[in-house]
Amino acid sequence: MTVPSLYDRPDFFAAYSRLPRSLHGLDAAPEWPVLRGMLPDLRGRRIVDLGCGFGWFCRWAAAQGAARVLGLDVSERMLARAAADAADPAVEYRQCDLEALVLPEGAFDLAYSSLALHYIVDLDRLAGVIHRALAPNGRLVFSIEHPIHTAPIRPGWIEGEDGRRVWPLNSYSVEGRRVTDWLAADVAKYHRTLGTILTLLLRTGFHVSQVVEFCPTEAQIAARPEMEEERDKPTFLLVGASR
Amino acid sequence: MTVPSLYDRPDFFAAYSRLPRSLHGLDAAPEWPVLRGMLPDLRGRRIVDLGCGFGWFCRWAAAQGAARVLGLDVSERMLARAAADAADPAVEYRQCDLEALVLPEGAFDLAYSSLALHYIVDLDRLAGVIHRALAPNGRLVFSIEHPIHTAPIRPGWIEGEDGRRVWPLNSYSVEGRRVTDWLAADVAKYHRTLGTILTLLLRTGFHVSQVVEFCPTEAQIAARPEMEEERDKPTFLLVGASR
Repeated sequence: MTVPSLYDRPDFFAAYSRLPRSLHGLDAAPEWPVLRGMLPDLRGRRIVDLGCGFGWFCRWAAAQGAARVLGLDVSERMLARAAADAADPAVEYRQCDLEALVLPEGAFDLAYSSLALHYIVDLDRLAGVIHRALAPNGRLVFSIEHPIHTAPIRPGWIEGEDGRRVWPLNSYSVEGRRVTDWLAADVAKYHRTLGTILTLLLRTGFHVSQVVEFCPTEAQIAARPEMEEERDKPTFLLVGASR
Repeated sequence: MTVPSLYDRPDFFAAYSRLPRSLHGLDAAPEWPVLRGMLPDLRGRRIVDLGCGFGWFCRWAAAQGAARVLGLDVSERMLARAAADAADPAVEYRQCDLEALVLPEGAFDLAYSSLALHYIVDLDRLAGVIHRALAPNGRLVFSIEHPIHTAPIRPGWIEGEDGRRVWPLNSYSVEGRRVTDWLAADVAKYHRTLGTILTLLLRTGFHVSQVVEFCPTEAQIAARPEMEEERDKPTFLLVGASR
């Protein structure tokens, strides 16, 4: 690729590296306990992690007894840091552009992806690749930025007519590229409606079995009061499906 | 019941009776072509319509060759008008509160509901009743007000910081009763997230196969320019599922 990936841009990488989930791993991600609960037993399973970043999930999955974990990411910087962490022989990292991903057929029991699929232009193609790469009854579990979060032309809380905080939703059904300033300037994501995301999976042949719009628990809000915003507008969509 | 149903309140009934879909039937409902496309072939099928209102769908289904159509509604006024229309021997109307619905097991091939389920307090119970009332491979097809539409504490378009129209979304994950002024004062609906609606179906045993967030076509917007709002914020959620 001639254009460096978003996560290889020095400004973005520096800001992303300072996020709690980058510094402290899975337990610093508020949606992780819910996503973890959507996973099958990992012992002896073959797993592919699409957009593995610093490899936190890959190492955790190996520690749960996974037979093999293949971590894929487009970012050379992230993979370099992932590889520099304590190595587990069950984990392998590979640099690859998910837009052009090729995987062997029926080779995995679980495809996992955390907050990567909203960067994908051709999600139809990728869903087909994942479906074919799964063994019968294989699972796909992923998180993605919620369409309500990605939709607005001008995202960011504003004050409603009664003085309450409101999320300025518009353009929900206008799908496609959204360029925003998130951690750095000019970050491009792809907005799709919830209906489109689920329909795309169903059309590919997946059975959709879990659809969760993440909302923090009372305990999480007590510990981090700013998370109360999530009650007004979900940021993360979590989906579980089977081949 | 001691409290008359919403649709039996004179103010609401009068306003509802003047809506295009009340006056002109299915073809005046913009979402109908999509909902119709989600239905199985109706010839010879046994159908129950939950919240049948004036009976437009029941009569249409009978005209498609349905073997039997049972139209259920809590509103005596609506059923009186439905019954006054040209009778088809395949159609039967029955007054009943969907909250306390009892249906025979395995007796229907299709359960249909148009814009009624957002009035239901105990949707878990009703989903179970519908599931048991369907024959194996029976279908459930329904429309419901979209959670994005029902969520806000203060629904109604406002102007965003860039002057564009925005829908003031908040309280999305705070489920429960919402009282608004729609056609009349103090209309109570029950807000549930999209995740909750789908999870409730999956937990009941349904296979979810269609999830559509209705957006009008270019032709519909050309004919009725005010419908362009639907691109910014979906009003109708359409779901298809199988037993």
